[in-house]
Amino acid sequence: MSDSSPFETTLRVRYKDTDAMGVVYHSNYLVFFEVGRTELLRRFGCIYSDMEARGFLLAVVDCSARFTKSARYDDLLTVRTRLANFKGPRVRLEYEVCRDGEVLVTGHTEHVVLLRDGFKPVRPPADLQQALERTLAAQASL
Amino acid sequence: MSDSSPFETTLRVRYKDTDAMGVVYHSNYLVFFEVGRTELLRRFGCIYSDMEARGFLLAVVDCSARFTKSARYDDLLTVRTRLANFKGPRVRLEYEVCRDGEVLVTGHTEHVVLLRDGFKPVRPPADLQQALERTLAAQASL
Amino acid sequence: MSDSSPFETTLRVRYKDTDAMGVVYHSNYLVFFEVGRTELLRRFGCIYSDMEARGFLLAVVDCSARFTKSARYDDLLTVRTRLANFKGPRVRLEYEVCRDGEVLVTGHTEHVVLLRDGFKPVRPPADLQQALERTLAAQASL
Amino acid sequence: MSDSSPFETTLRVRYKDTDAMGVVYHSNYLVFFEVGRTELLRRFGCIYSDMEARGFLLAVVDCSARFTKSARYDDLLTVRTRLANFKGPRVRLEYEVCRDGEVLVTGHTEHVVLLRDGFKPVRPPADLQQALERTLAAQASL
Repeated sequence: MSDSSPFETTLRVRYKDTDAMGVVYHSNYLVFFEVGRTELLRRFGCIYSDMEARGFLLAVVDCSARFTKSARYDDLLTVRTRLANFKGPRVRLEYEVCRDGEVLVTGHTEHVVLLRDGFKPVRPPADLQQALERTLAAQASL
Repeated sequence: MSDSSPFETTLRVRYKDTDAMGVVYHSNYLVFFEVGRTELLRRFGCIYSDMEARGFLLAVVDCSARFTKSARYDDLLTVRTRLANFKGPRVRLEYEVCRDGEVLVTGHTEHVVLLRDGFKPVRPPADLQQALERTLAAQASL
Repeated sequence: MSDSSPFETTLRVRYKDTDAMGVVYHSNYLVFFEVGRTELLRRFGCIYSDMEARGFLLAVVDCSARFTKSARYDDLLTVRTRLANFKGPRVRLEYEVCRDGEVLVTGHTEHVVLLRDGFKPVRPPADLQQALERTLAAQASL
Repeated sequence: MSDSSPFETTLRVRYKDTDAMGVVYHSNYLVFFEVGRTELLRRFGCIYSDMEARGFLLAVVDCSARFTKSARYDDLLTVRTRLANFKGPRVRLEYEVCRDGEVLVTGHTEHVVLLRDGFKPVRPPADLQQALERTLAAQASL
């Protein structure tokens, strides 16, 4: 995948992200996953903030992360996001956080689309549904 | 002030609060101020979450912090909170963050009471107003 | 388990922990797990900050969390921590975050004991080793 | 100032930055200031992480922020950073956080250059000194 891949987002480690071990505190990678997810959806036509403004939420119901190497302050990281699957209100995404092409952290998140009003599970609204379908199609053509 | 002073709250520094300098990242002291403020109001009869559930917000409009010494991971810190003044929708609080009686950080926050609906400034609701008056009275009798 | 169980730690949700959905942002539960883990070790005789001062780190190499219900601002949460197993440099802990006895979130973390100097895996130092053994024994007698 | 000004850095509000009021939690603006400061120094030739690797720290000793309008999730914000002055080990910077040209938040940070070893104040190392001088010169020519 080239640097301009729709599946990749770059971010820089902030001092705030580090901890007393001198590396990125582990929970912050989940925030980096969030950045990857938001940008993936945006590039395939779904702006999550718009969706939320219309009363839909994409709540996290499950997540994991596995840490192989540490990122440090000021590192330029690439978050590679991949749509694993989606069915009904459920969406599963997978992530790799890389530095200079080397994978440091892998993980996943699983989501449920909810109505803000009552937190009830619902099928994805049209813009999310289309973005998910386009993402799968783009992944298939890689 | 004794350890059971209504103006003091104790908290322990989490690993997440630290940064690569091995000390608490500066912005986290504003969160410690939040803890001090919430507990002060609670002890004088205003549960902020209740107030918010009724549609009132206490938005931060100004803040400062001055850092003299560093706190470290696992330090037990005391946040001393003092009501400086309040008038109309405005409330000003001052803070000291201490370790073993030594002041590490001082600061202030200024707030405006808002209606959640439209973010309009309003006078404090009765429970907040009473808590502020009781706090001032308790401070005067110290 | 009673409220004074060595396996339970109580914490209150801060405003900083919440997000625009009005609930605790998911990555913060990993920080709550950290609090549970630190307090469990402390109660069984290992002060993690002391261990770290002597050059040992307890790095997170794997984690997961499953979210069933949402916690909200000012909720009083209980983190129940359980030592799953440990072998050589590896330690695995499991967590439940509860409110009023109801489990909201479950998860795990896996750690490797490292020397700060070079991030090399090593067997736990004596204080950690003893705390882990005491924890297992206490769990067996529950 | 154009969008490609060395004094401006753009960042996008993450969901993690928001709170239950639906806006950016106030302490996060100090992190946005950090981003502005780091990028300003980088553009004028001082990579803070390099400086730190050589044993120098730029500790925050004072900060303030004033909040006029709220930023929200997914907002694209511009941090404008200005070097106010520097003398001996002290450096003062000022910030504006803007959205679509409108200033939402203003603030400042004051720093002391320290040796990591012992946290002793020292004069800025050559790369920082030059970056500060170049920044002042660039500001004078605006």
